[in-house]
Amino acid sequence: MLPYDSLIVVDKENQLPIYKQITNRLIGLIQKGLIPPGTFFPGTRQMAELITVNRKTIINAYEELLTEDWIESIDRKGYRVTPELPVIKPRSFQPPSHFSSTGYVSSEGLILQCPPQPEHRDTKSSDIVVNDGFPDPELAPFKEISKIYRDKGISSRIKQLMCLRDQGGLPLLKDAAALFLNETRGLNIKKDDIVITRGAQMAIYITATVLLSKGDHVVVTEPNYVFANDIMENAGAYITKIGIDEEGPDMDQLDQILKKSPIRMLYIVPHHHHPTTITMSAARRQKLLKLIEQYGFYVIEDDYDYDFYYKNSPILPLASAPHHGKIIYIGSFTKLLAPSIRIGYLIAAPDIVKKAIALKRLIDLRGDTFIEYMLAQMIINGDMARHINKSNKLYSHRCDFICNLLTQKLSHAIEFTKPLGGMAVWLKFKSRFPINRILNDASHAGLCMIGMPFRRPGDPNDNGIRFGFASLSEEEMTKAVDILVKITS
Amino acid sequence: MLPYDSLIVVDKENQLPIYKQITNRLIGLIQKGLIPPGTFFPGTRQMAELITVNRKTIINAYEELLTEDWIESIDRKGYRVTPELPVIKPRSFQPPSHFSSTGYVSSEGLILQCPPQPEHRDTKSSDIVVNDGFPDPELAPFKEISKIYRDKGISSRIKQLMCLRDQGGLPLLKDAAALFLNETRGLNIKKDDIVITRGAQMAIYITATVLLSKGDHVVVTEPNYVFANDIMENAGAYITKIGIDEEGPDMDQLDQILKKSPIRMLYIVPHHHHPTTITMSAARRQKLLKLIEQYGFYVIEDDYDYDFYYKNSPILPLASAPHHGKIIYIGSFTKLLAPSIRIGYLIAAPDIVKKAIALKRLIDLRGDTFIEYMLAQMIINGDMARHINKSNKLYSHRCDFICNLLTQKLSHAIEFTKPLGGMAVWLKFKSRFPINRILNDASHAGLCMIGMPFRRPGDPNDNGIRFGFASLSEEEMTKAVDILVKITS
Repeated sequence: MLPYDSLIVVDKENQLPIYKQITNRLIGLIQKGLIPPGTFFPGTRQMAELITVNRKTIINAYEELLTEDWIESIDRKGYRVTPELPVIKPRSFQPPSHFSSTGYVSSEGLILQCPPQPEHRDTKSSDIVVNDGFPDPELAPFKEISKIYRDKGISSRIKQLMCLRDQGGLPLLKDAAALFLNETRGLNIKKDDIVITRGAQMAIYITATVLLSKGDHVVVTEPNYVFANDIMENAGAYITKIGIDEEGPDMDQLDQILKKSPIRMLYIVPHHHHPTTITMSAARRQKLLKLIEQYGFYVIEDDYDYDFYYKNSPILPLASAPHHGKIIYIGSFTKLLAPSIRIGYLIAAPDIVKKAIALKRLIDLRGDTFIEYMLAQMIINGDMARHINKSNKLYSHRCDFICNLLTQKLSHAIEFTKPLGGMAVWLKFKSRFPINRILNDASHAGLCMIGMPFRRPGDPNDNGIRFGFASLSEEEMTKAVDILVKITS
Repeated sequence: MLPYDSLIVVDKENQLPIYKQITNRLIGLIQKGLIPPGTFFPGTRQMAELITVNRKTIINAYEELLTEDWIESIDRKGYRVTPELPVIKPRSFQPPSHFSSTGYVSSEGLILQCPPQPEHRDTKSSDIVVNDGFPDPELAPFKEISKIYRDKGISSRIKQLMCLRDQGGLPLLKDAAALFLNETRGLNIKKDDIVITRGAQMAIYITATVLLSKGDHVVVTEPNYVFANDIMENAGAYITKIGIDEEGPDMDQLDQILKKSPIRMLYIVPHHHHPTTITMSAARRQKLLKLIEQYGFYVIEDDYDYDFYYKNSPILPLASAPHHGKIIYIGSFTKLLAPSIRIGYLIAAPDIVKKAIALKRLIDLRGDTFIEYMLAQMIINGDMARHINKSNKLYSHRCDFICNLLTQKLSHAIEFTKPLGGMAVWLKFKSRFPINRILNDASHAGLCMIGMPFRRPGDPNDNGIRFGFASLSEEEMTKAVDILVKITS
């Protein structure tokens, strides 16, 4: 409630009757926008107490405002400022508001641009939305979350835990995550090697911010996960790009770069590369491990969807081989569960972990204790393994389905390689179908593709977008492809 | 599951029987720690398929391992690596693990130290934990969260929303927050003036990172919210400190500083200062607004617990007065609800908002859609106002209770001023009770105070810690104070 007692000051020596002073003052506040349209006034009794006048005076004031249509009476709810009221003469609180800056904001050394992204396309509920590769929220453990919030015993324990100081994640979850990662990825880590973050995104941000300084040299692939590039640039680094072919990132190019000048860090997605979904070959992995040993640069290994694979077993992460603390391994439970359950992690050498925990605390004091607890339980009681199995079967089926559809119906317009795992197909449109035009036309036809479109200036082959299939039913995939057929025919 | 098919390679030309090759290989993997103690093996049928041998071969291999006590059989669950197994001859995957760094981490230009903090004190469940000023989780809307996760209609809508690209918070929540802030704080803002963050902490981090560059000059109070200082230093700024007395931060000192050299930013907590809980006087506020106009520096107004006040109405924020976009107003719903419900916000000029949204996306792709939705509903349906009323009554009562206790029992050891609102009392211990010794003794006596102790070198008067009363029952407060009495007598 507004502090009416300080906003409305009654002057008993004034010739105007008190109720009229109050009326005028309230009109003034409404006009200035201080009391916005739709706001309910305090009841007459409460208002009278607030500004220490007789209740009758307030009733008179409200009646005056009613007569002048400033407020309206709502049955059993009281009086509110008329919602349709045109705000007359906006003054100090209206735009150009106090929040219109006159100073400059961008400051030296800070590179922070909005990444190149599709314009915000408002979606209608009838539209089909195709994302970048999200898990299907229908499989997500929302019922389990609901239960944990309801369960008296658990929630009383969680209420204690949430009041303790966070040290990079709930200890129970760090333990469980270590178990999970050791079992699935051939790592041999312990609780204290892990920092829990809000999704892999925060893990990349924290790692880059801890390790990079202005002027540092970072190598990434082209194309690459765009927000990773933005993070490196935001940390003050300059970026050199290496190519990627069907065997993964080009290690010869990396070798050439290293021969010329030292680099501080490589950001790489060896398992299912983003956006192309390409898996790095064993030979290239070996070559990379040798280069790390030879030149001693840091590597962010972003392994965001290790757990979904349809044909072969997954390839163990680079971080499972000896690397002398140079690899920072990053992953995400978000990709296993749902976009809103934002839990990722970074695994690194003790000195990096220590700095990461300190930086995380400055960014985000603690995580969501309920969600972290629920996730730890899922891992420990085996629900996570069952969830991954179930998801894998469904997504594998959907992967087959979309790839068949694309081959049958869209070969005139696109090229693609069936991914070995993950949640998206990398659609490369032929050069006569510029990706931005495709997205625009699709949007008008009821298909909203919210992934990041990739188009490399001067390279007609790089004209693509990811098609996330994991969260779509067969009906939705069919509709989406039919729209793409329609706009490319 | 581990990729056994790539880990176990059978050599048919080898003289050893195949089952023995598999046995030896598995022992090797267990010894190296690649298969940690407690890991369940795949069933015999699945393992046989994985490495394409006869199932009987696997049964033989497992039996060999059982005989040698490498694994044990668990009824209806299968075989697992013996949990008590001493890991023999740890090699490549054991510590010193791959994550032991050999390189240096701290890099030029990056100031990132663990803040001075009390040592981690392990708490027993019998201990009384006194925090820095958290809301009582018993009042938190956890049942409502549970409901939203269960409700089919709502959760199907939320599942759509969580897949859309985040633009600084759920639009519904930004609308509701604008309504809430306009009604309670005399602001006149709209949805697009707000960025939703993970608590006020992330709002401070983002604002400072967007606005500050290396070498910028920032003014803060002494003492101050320690993590705010760390954020400023992490952003490369250097800090000058001004004092604070019973009327709030010393504006004459600020004036003196400004006369000598420009500053880029002031970080201030005018309402209930952290840690001292002092409310800035009207005269000082006016003086500050004049200085902002005259010198044009940015101000972070951290108003983390505006909504709790016990004697007077709250004082409207600085940001409700004209400030030409120079004030960034920061607040938190976390302080209203529970430490684990991390939702804060920043309100700023459009150019800052734009950059804040872009930086937020790099740090944290999206918020928790369920929690953001629930919070918006609470504001719109009036539950938030009722929750605040209820909390205010309870906390006001607890504030009276603790202050009476402190006066009666602890006057020999402390000084304090009863706060006008908020969730903590600032306890200044007399100089013969050094705060770190007090915390240590308290900890041994079963009282864990997890706030940040403040002690200014050379200033015997600055020797304090916040005592958060809002989340404690009368019984807990009595016990806590009795322990403080005991260790100071």
